[in-house]
Amino acid sequence: MKKYVFGNPVKTGAVVKEVLESEDEISVFHLSEVQDGLEFSCRMGERDVVYGLGEQVRGINKRGFSYISYASDDPIHTENKHSLYGGHNFLILYRADAPDGKSFGVFVDDPGKVVFDVGETRRDLLLIRTGKDCVVYVTEGDSLKDLAKQFRELVGQSYIAPKWAFGYQQSRWGYLNESDVREVVENHRKHGIPLEAVYLDIDYMKDYKDFTVDEERFPDFQGFVEKMRREGVHLVPIIDAGVKIEKGYPVYEEGVRENYFCREENGENFVGAVWPGKVHFPDFLNAKARTWFGGKYRRLIEQGIDGFWNDMNEPAIFYSEKNLKKVLDEISSIKDDNLDLNDFFHMQEIVEGLCNHPEDYKSFYHDMDGVKVRHDKVHNLYGFYMTKAAAEAFDQIAPNQRILLFSRSSYIGMHRYGGIWTGDNESWWSHLLLSIQQMPSLNLCGILYTGSDLGGFGSDATEDLLLRWMAFAIFTPLMRNHAAAGTRRQEAYQFEAVESFRSLIRIRYALLPYLYSEYMKAALSDELYFRPVSFDYPKDRHAFFVEDQLMVGESIMIAPVYTQNAAGRYVYLPEEMLLVRMRSDKERTYQVLSKGHHYIDVSLKEAVFFVKKDHMLPFAVLEEDVRTTQDVSPERIVWIGFADKEAEYVLYEDDGVSKRYAPKEDWKTIRLKKEEMEGF
Amino acid sequence: MKKYVFGNPVKTGAVVKEVLESEDEISVFHLSEVQDGLEFSCRMGERDVVYGLGEQVRGINKRGFSYISYASDDPIHTENKHSLYGGHNFLILYRADAPDGKSFGVFVDDPGKVVFDVGETRRDLLLIRTGKDCVVYVTEGDSLKDLAKQFRELVGQSYIAPKWAFGYQQSRWGYLNESDVREVVENHRKHGIPLEAVYLDIDYMKDYKDFTVDEERFPDFQGFVEKMRREGVHLVPIIDAGVKIEKGYPVYEEGVRENYFCREENGENFVGAVWPGKVHFPDFLNAKARTWFGGKYRRLIEQGIDGFWNDMNEPAIFYSEKNLKKVLDEISSIKDDNLDLNDFFHMQEIVEGLCNHPEDYKSFYHDMDGVKVRHDKVHNLYGFYMTKAAAEAFDQIAPNQRILLFSRSSYIGMHRYGGIWTGDNESWWSHLLLSIQQMPSLNLCGILYTGSDLGGFGSDATEDLLLRWMAFAIFTPLMRNHAAAGTRRQEAYQFEAVESFRSLIRIRYALLPYLYSEYMKAALSDELYFRPVSFDYPKDRHAFFVEDQLMVGESIMIAPVYTQNAAGRYVYLPEEMLLVRMRSDKERTYQVLSKGHHYIDVSLKEAVFFVKKDHMLPFAVLEEDVRTTQDVSPERIVWIGFADKEAEYVLYEDDGVSKRYAPKEDWKTIRLKKEEMEGF
Repeated sequence: MKKYVFGNPVKTGAVVKEVLESEDEISVFHLSEVQDGLEFSCRMGERDVVYGLGEQVRGINKRGFSYISYASDDPIHTENKHSLYGGHNFLILYRADAPDGKSFGVFVDDPGKVVFDVGETRRDLLLIRTGKDCVVYVTEGDSLKDLAKQFRELVGQSYIAPKWAFGYQQSRWGYLNESDVREVVENHRKHGIPLEAVYLDIDYMKDYKDFTVDEERFPDFQGFVEKMRREGVHLVPIIDAGVKIEKGYPVYEEGVRENYFCREENGENFVGAVWPGKVHFPDFLNAKARTWFGGKYRRLIEQGIDGFWNDMNEPAIFYSEKNLKKVLDEISSIKDDNLDLNDFFHMQEIVEGLCNHPEDYKSFYHDMDGVKVRHDKVHNLYGFYMTKAAAEAFDQIAPNQRILLFSRSSYIGMHRYGGIWTGDNESWWSHLLLSIQQMPSLNLCGILYTGSDLGGFGSDATEDLLLRWMAFAIFTPLMRNHAAAGTRRQEAYQFEAVESFRSLIRIRYALLPYLYSEYMKAALSDELYFRPVSFDYPKDRHAFFVEDQLMVGESIMIAPVYTQNAAGRYVYLPEEMLLVRMRSDKERTYQVLSKGHHYIDVSLKEAVFFVKKDHMLPFAVLEEDVRTTQDVSPERIVWIGFADKEAEYVLYEDDGVSKRYAPKEDWKTIRLKKEEMEGF
Repeated sequence: MKKYVFGNPVKTGAVVKEVLESEDEISVFHLSEVQDGLEFSCRMGERDVVYGLGEQVRGINKRGFSYISYASDDPIHTENKHSLYGGHNFLILYRADAPDGKSFGVFVDDPGKVVFDVGETRRDLLLIRTGKDCVVYVTEGDSLKDLAKQFRELVGQSYIAPKWAFGYQQSRWGYLNESDVREVVENHRKHGIPLEAVYLDIDYMKDYKDFTVDEERFPDFQGFVEKMRREGVHLVPIIDAGVKIEKGYPVYEEGVRENYFCREENGENFVGAVWPGKVHFPDFLNAKARTWFGGKYRRLIEQGIDGFWNDMNEPAIFYSEKNLKKVLDEISSIKDDNLDLNDFFHMQEIVEGLCNHPEDYKSFYHDMDGVKVRHDKVHNLYGFYMTKAAAEAFDQIAPNQRILLFSRSSYIGMHRYGGIWTGDNESWWSHLLLSIQQMPSLNLCGILYTGSDLGGFGSDATEDLLLRWMAFAIFTPLMRNHAAAGTRRQEAYQFEAVESFRSLIRIRYALLPYLYSEYMKAALSDELYFRPVSFDYPKDRHAFFVEDQLMVGESIMIAPVYTQNAAGRYVYLPEEMLLVRMRSDKERTYQVLSKGHHYIDVSLKEAVFFVKKDHMLPFAVLEEDVRTTQDVSPERIVWIGFADKEAEYVLYEDDGVSKRYAPKEDWKTIRLKKEEMEGF
């Protein structure tokens, strides 16, 4: 791992491993100075592949587009969007054709805007444009897994969620009160659908004020949290970045008094507007402000809460006070004239442009250890540091307890403190595919606890889309059904096929011993839970072209169906594998398929996956009334396997809540003969 | 064919064949009255397939979504969009499971809003919601091809474009003047890329006034048109629906004087705003206004123009004068208060909502043979009748000459007068797939002369996207590269791979004898040029699931690559076929592939297609310097074929411009022995 320092970079906290600054010039790139920054360029061979970049649009191989790391609250994740919610500046350039040189991984530690032009401008050119001040880490090597692991060791161990957070979770913007939540829980229980958590979106708060609970909607919040916990259900409240400006609201008052908010050039607190109306933004980059804000989670934890999602922390800004005034003034001046078409376009543009306006991000400042830093220069750290604020506080409040924590915005480094969800996607088939493709890219950047809004957040979900999405989400650590207010209800019990939903979710629970073991191995060993197929089969030329199959943990490969009205799909097997087909956790069939291309039928009611040769996995035998992860007994397991003679598996099992990870007794190496497994 | 009349429908002109009104009750649907209209419903079996509905999003099988026929200028064609630019109310419900009854085709002749809920609400339910006044045509049968043909006979013969319009065409919003156009032509010529037409988007007009030419940009328009024609290049100007309100502008003055514009309730001419600023909308539904407007094309035809595209004829309305005033007033009243978040959202909503506002479509009226009809009731006829205005005028101006004509908005019936392009798509891979899937749906509705903006209209195209799109567009009758102002330049010569673009376009020209013959057969026999695979292989269960391959004409099947960074794709062959692979019009290889599933490699430089068993096709031998369709000699042909012993092909050839279609001598039946063909 080589480290190159340019200019005078801020300390981002992304990296945990000490690396000495290299004395050589950077060798894998041609470096040049461009306006306001640096440009790193290198040639790509025709068959070279680029992996990584985390939360972005398009495929697993990132070639053919430009990606801009600049966290952005943009809910329309179409192919032309250069930025989503995070800044994940790690990529691997895999040299498929040897003459072009060694493969390498590169991490650009620059929390401002970074552009990755991965062959968009010219197919054979990789261009990275950074600011003037940044640190660049480069590691060369031939093994994709090694390159990935070296980077992960650099940035430190990924966040580990409590085991219950691997259960099925239900969310919707629009569960307003106790009775809405209770109804959701009751419906799941009534239909025998396991359920682990219900999310509280912005409506649980009093006027969207952070760390408040609306007492009309939740008259006895603590009691209700406890009651739900007796049902096996965790409540997971949202925390937004912006703090409502309201006299008498303690968080606001304290923040103002102690100078904990982001300030404008002139020293006044910056005013933006988000859900609560006008807000100030806590200066999470200021260590004291971070401690203060983190401490606020205590009240909710004391009321029994053990999971949070941090939102709106790009930060999203619906408008700034200053810019809104300007826009309104402009519109009145237009009105006085006789408006022409250009005025009209201009009016549309300035009104649309109010949201997340680039100039707003240049108009407030952070106090980083006494140094005043303009926000846009460190923009991508904001969500990271909000989440770090919470996680560091949790270490104080409940030192040995795992608390669920994930965020919308993130930067590499945040993966140590929490997971992410992939933001406000849509009920589109193309977004099911996008979600599949994002998983390995995120894992490469250290983000292991992740998943997409199952069924899609915006637009109306259909039953078939939800079934297919569910059959994929069985494998994502975060398995959460979430949707926006105003869209069609999409809880599993809202459709005719409720029995199929129940079966798919139960299959998830039966797979938990495997999925949890694999998650823990990936986290504790700095490895990937989701991998592109090529990572396991680097000698297979075709594996590099597989964009819609993933390796999940050490034993299996998945190939989700992601197109509407399909009877099944094509699958590429890089070696002979065992196809496992399930209609429920009780009904399984097995079929050995040869290396090569196959079309497999997969009905809407089925989940399928493939077991690698000489591998096996644990599969829990579930009681009829399994409701939560706690009902899955590690004692009652069948082994599904595919082996010539025997296979071995290392099973991990712990209490699921304490942070005492992985003492010897939690690992069990199990070796079974072919006859002792289920399979073929 | 059964005809059911409900209420008092307007005469749309969609149907040309006389059908007696049925005395039975409609049998394939359950009919019920709902608010303001009728609902037709029927059950769908699990494997039933729905084809048709023309220009809409999603797949060839329309199941799983709701489609709304209500022409809409919405440039973001994502999966959640219920309406695009047309109203194409024909579908076939194919009964894959016999117990559910016979398959049928249904055409809903209602030019107002019609909703097709094809299993979105419930997977097993087809719901059609119409207005109170409509005509419904139903035809039952077992053969998909027959059902399609019966419908096409009902609505009459499809438009036939001049042969030059089957050549390669280049367009871009932003070619401003003579010199821009000349540069485009010169660059194609310089690189040896055939080119048939250059489009003039809105900038050629003086202040966007219909039927004017900006004299600064085109000082000698007629001379320039002629000069380009000597280069083999046709200029194709755009005509927009709205007529600029400008004193002294003859089209405006005449329209006002003669009452040819759409009027509000109170009799005043309706004022909307589009590109020219404030406009009136010609009342194309008024026969006199239609004749008047159509006559205006004469001036351009006299200057040598022989092709037009009619645009903005949904009609698109950026805003109406009335609504804009209301919005501006609302914003000022907000400004006076202390704006809160709801006000802000409201402001965003009303500003965004100005475009194509539903209330605007209810606030103007047509004069249909003396009857005053509110626009929204006949909304989908507007683009149809604008195009009919032009076509009927052409019949007067140049009775025996084919003039290129296509439109953005359309309704079934318009297919007799012109084609369509599929509107303002994006440079997205998903839109390449969408374009493939739209083709058979459009053909089913009679629209044969069609294609998408090759490379994508909005967003930046990349070289690989354009190459793959080109390799598909080889087969679309309209093969036009078009892009929006402000996007990356995407003419074929703008990229490194100019040689590959040249080769792909030349392959199109070499295929012209086949493509043109097949187009003419489809048009003259009321058949489909593009077909879903199932139409040719109805006994093959898997064929019904094929969503990304098309039959093109009688001899071939295509399987375009539509994913980024792919080495090739999977293909399903419903029978043994011959894979033809071309790197250029000179380099061809052949391979027989068995019935079943295959993965085929297809490089960015290649075009591939499949020849059906016992079929053949003509392939022209091109000179090195082929520039236009006129340089493709019908005399120099090789035959590509795949036959056990021999095959037969009916070749069509005519002068390409006159309307004297298909006398006996234009058809040649050619029968060749295996040895006389190229192939395997």
